[in-house]
Amino acid sequence: MIRMVLNGCNGKMGKVISEMAKASTNISIVAGIDKNSSGLTYPCYNHINECEDEIDVILDFSRPDALDALCQYSKAKNIPIVFCTTGYTEKQLSKIHSLSEDIAVFHSANMSIGINIINNMLRSISNMLYKDFDIEIIEKHHNQKVDAPSGTALLLANTIKDSIEDETIFNNGRNGLHKRERNEIGIHAIRGGNIIGDHEIIFAGKGECIEIKHTAISREVFAIGALKACEYIYGKEKGLYSMDDVVNTSL
Amino acid sequence: MIRMVLNGCNGKMGKVISEMAKASTNISIVAGIDKNSSGLTYPCYNHINECEDEIDVILDFSRPDALDALCQYSKAKNIPIVFCTTGYTEKQLSKIHSLSEDIAVFHSANMSIGINIINNMLRSISNMLYKDFDIEIIEKHHNQKVDAPSGTALLLANTIKDSIEDETIFNNGRNGLHKRERNEIGIHAIRGGNIIGDHEIIFAGKGECIEIKHTAISREVFAIGALKACEYIYGKEKGLYSMDDVVNTSL
Amino acid sequence: MIRMVLNGCNGKMGKVISEMAKASTNISIVAGIDKNSSGLTYPCYNHINECEDEIDVILDFSRPDALDALCQYSKAKNIPIVFCTTGYTEKQLSKIHSLSEDIAVFHSANMSIGINIINNMLRSISNMLYKDFDIEIIEKHHNQKVDAPSGTALLLANTIKDSIEDETIFNNGRNGLHKRERNEIGIHAIRGGNIIGDHEIIFAGKGECIEIKHTAISREVFAIGALKACEYIYGKEKGLYSMDDVVNTSL
Amino acid sequence: MIRMVLNGCNGKMGKVISEMAKASTNISIVAGIDKNSSGLTYPCYNHINECEDEIDVILDFSRPDALDALCQYSKAKNIPIVFCTTGYTEKQLSKIHSLSEDIAVFHSANMSIGINIINNMLRSISNMLYKDFDIEIIEKHHNQKVDAPSGTALLLANTIKDSIEDETIFNNGRNGLHKRERNEIGIHAIRGGNIIGDHEIIFAGKGECIEIKHTAISREVFAIGALKACEYIYGKEKGLYSMDDVVNTSL
Repeated sequence: MIRMVLNGCNGKMGKVISEMAKASTNISIVAGIDKNSSGLTYPCYNHINECEDEIDVILDFSRPDALDALCQYSKAKNIPIVFCTTGYTEKQLSKIHSLSEDIAVFHSANMSIGINIINNMLRSISNMLYKDFDIEIIEKHHNQKVDAPSGTALLLANTIKDSIEDETIFNNGRNGLHKRERNEIGIHAIRGGNIIGDHEIIFAGKGECIEIKHTAISREVFAIGALKACEYIYGKEKGLYSMDDVVNTSL
Repeated sequence: MIRMVLNGCNGKMGKVISEMAKASTNISIVAGIDKNSSGLTYPCYNHINECEDEIDVILDFSRPDALDALCQYSKAKNIPIVFCTTGYTEKQLSKIHSLSEDIAVFHSANMSIGINIINNMLRSISNMLYKDFDIEIIEKHHNQKVDAPSGTALLLANTIKDSIEDETIFNNGRNGLHKRERNEIGIHAIRGGNIIGDHEIIFAGKGECIEIKHTAISREVFAIGALKACEYIYGKEKGLYSMDDVVNTSL
Repeated sequence: MIRMVLNGCNGKMGKVISEMAKASTNISIVAGIDKNSSGLTYPCYNHINECEDEIDVILDFSRPDALDALCQYSKAKNIPIVFCTTGYTEKQLSKIHSLSEDIAVFHSANMSIGINIINNMLRSISNMLYKDFDIEIIEKHHNQKVDAPSGTALLLANTIKDSIEDETIFNNGRNGLHKRERNEIGIHAIRGGNIIGDHEIIFAGKGECIEIKHTAISREVFAIGALKACEYIYGKEKGLYSMDDVVNTSL
Repeated sequence: MIRMVLNGCNGKMGKVISEMAKASTNISIVAGIDKNSSGLTYPCYNHINECEDEIDVILDFSRPDALDALCQYSKAKNIPIVFCTTGYTEKQLSKIHSLSEDIAVFHSANMSIGINIINNMLRSISNMLYKDFDIEIIEKHHNQKVDAPSGTALLLANTIKDSIEDETIFNNGRNGLHKRERNEIGIHAIRGGNIIGDHEIIFAGKGECIEIKHTAISREVFAIGALKACEYIYGKEKGLYSMDDVVNTSL
């Protein structure tokens, strides 16, 4: 059993993961970190530093401001760590990167297996399709989402861009108020109701279209990815890992 | 049999209509107007003024610059006329409107039955849904289309706007680079390959979405609408008619 | 404030409704009925008969076997009742119908506003479209669903059938192993993962398609409908009411 | 320039190919074979045997009964041949296979690049996804199509089946009238109007769905594939080739 400590164990995602971990045969939560310890089935500390347990991996689903303490602790104890928190600044992201020079660090823009499989497919087909197909991305999220396009839409667009040999000018969110340029990838952000998260890549060619679509049905999907990430990073050497590695191993 | 003269009979749409009219039991093309008369099964004149035949209705699928001659001729002979030409200027549109004070005139932003049925549904549900649902429109067309959003997308958006009792600020082509405002309708124009024409209206609410989508499969659909328009306007009194009237009669 | 008693208050749906009712300005839960009373913010009884409170409406989200007690109680006290329980037998359904001869009874095959708005649209367009369009229905649900096609798919198909003037032979789940007959409506049931519930009606015609789609994102949507039903039936005379009435009043 | 002879040059597809070939810088049609030679810009023979021209490749878009003559001719002259005709019997298919022991033969169930790219993706992801996702296929075609499911849907389903390590029971056209079995792939055939051809593969998992969709917009798409096939097989050694090879080379 992989012994895991869950930072942010009583948050929205923390609860989903705690529920799932119960069913897991590979991972058990030995302790959680959260201000609020109500209704937990495992010991809970206020701060990561209070955790003296024997642990194999740290899973973080909390807030960006928890980063410094997590870096210190994981580096000092040399424990692989999985960052699932979002909204990091550039500065914080580079801190995560440098941490990976000392220990095993896992970080991904999107924790779902499905998105990362799609990202993988895009890498293998974009350069070929690009010659004969126009590429556009549509993403849909709830009306409270503050950022747009979504980080995942940008992840996918960048994968396509990096896979295409000739240069592509990005146009994030072509609003269609001009004629389409050959070398642009439109990204369109739809916002409404409480849509959890859809992402669709359209390849429109001469006489045919290919569409690849991902639909998030529930938060479960990110918990499943997070647990897979913990299993993947367990026992790994120092370095920066992502869901992309997880998907590629399984393929 | 309704005797029809087809202006622009050898153009892309003219040919489709000629083909269809052969099968029609209600309408027969007695003459066509076109510079090029090759491969026609009916008499063809260079200019509408040369047409001396007994006709019941004029169908125009040509160019905006043909408008003046058509107005003069139809008014002088008091023959109902159906305008399917697109790309008219505001000035030309108002000319069409004033013509309708003297004779029966038919004009629509989109000639397909399907779009007009959807337009009709929007009129009946928008005000109710608007209270609890966010509304966004996605339209898809080929990469050579110069205007965006499509005239049809604007038609649908205006129908929604006019059906909603409180004021709506339009945001044609929300490019998603800002948080969604409650009272805006996003219109997103996708351009790629040779997509004929898709239009989708999304009502995204709390825990559910309603999507209404129209897909044009071939140019046939506009020919069918044009012939229905000819049947509709045949024998009508002076006035301005549209596909909306056709749909409402059938409902 | 409408005073409501919630039968099955600690079930999956009961919890969602309790949560929503807190935010409601029109409805308050004065008592709940459930074997398990843990974590409730209002009094809870084991059996409806123990409830002596002043109540205006009963909302039932429990099991079919609770029907008899609910009928007796609501009839004796002449309290309007909303049945949201599913899986009733024909016999039980007719019992609900006869109850409506004495008091106000609310019952619908699907409690979401969206599905009932779509059902309403189908009623108004089906007979017109039927002449020129083929009609097929696709429904998608999680892989644990035992019945197929879904009750909602049958509700929609029956609405279409009843709206069409000439006779339609139903073919629930055309599996496509034969050529399409003109007068059949195919119903296709997709089952996979934990899809909550999608329903799509396709009108496929000459050169164009119209698609009307409903997607359930979360159970919330049924709770919203149930509370709207309670508001609707409050103070109504005896009779049988459904979401269809709610939608029509708002339209 | 590759010198091509087109068998069935005046059929529906023959005309599309003739039109496209005019624009091609790599392929020119030196002769066509057809009963009807009207409106052609190149010499036309009644029978392949009359063709004495210097040719590099034969493209066949005709009828199954033309097979024997084509096999004889291509084998005798050792000219690579591309079979795009559909509706072959098992016996005829094996004849095509044995021909490939003597000369270069090209044959595919579907000639579009898009479908073959999707087929390729399925090969690489199916075995991984199969463990956690349910797989269903939806195909849509016009209401005159006699066979169902479409040959392309079966092609895709077989690719998935062959990519999955453990055994899968096929259920072509699960009509949803039973609970979903874990090891079945449902294929659903929608028929309506004049839909040209859509194919969609759904991977439905825990909390997420992946959908891969192909839409045929016009017959052009098959002509493009046929011309690419001619370029591919030109100068190849004896053997059996398919669109799969074309796609893999480009990838």
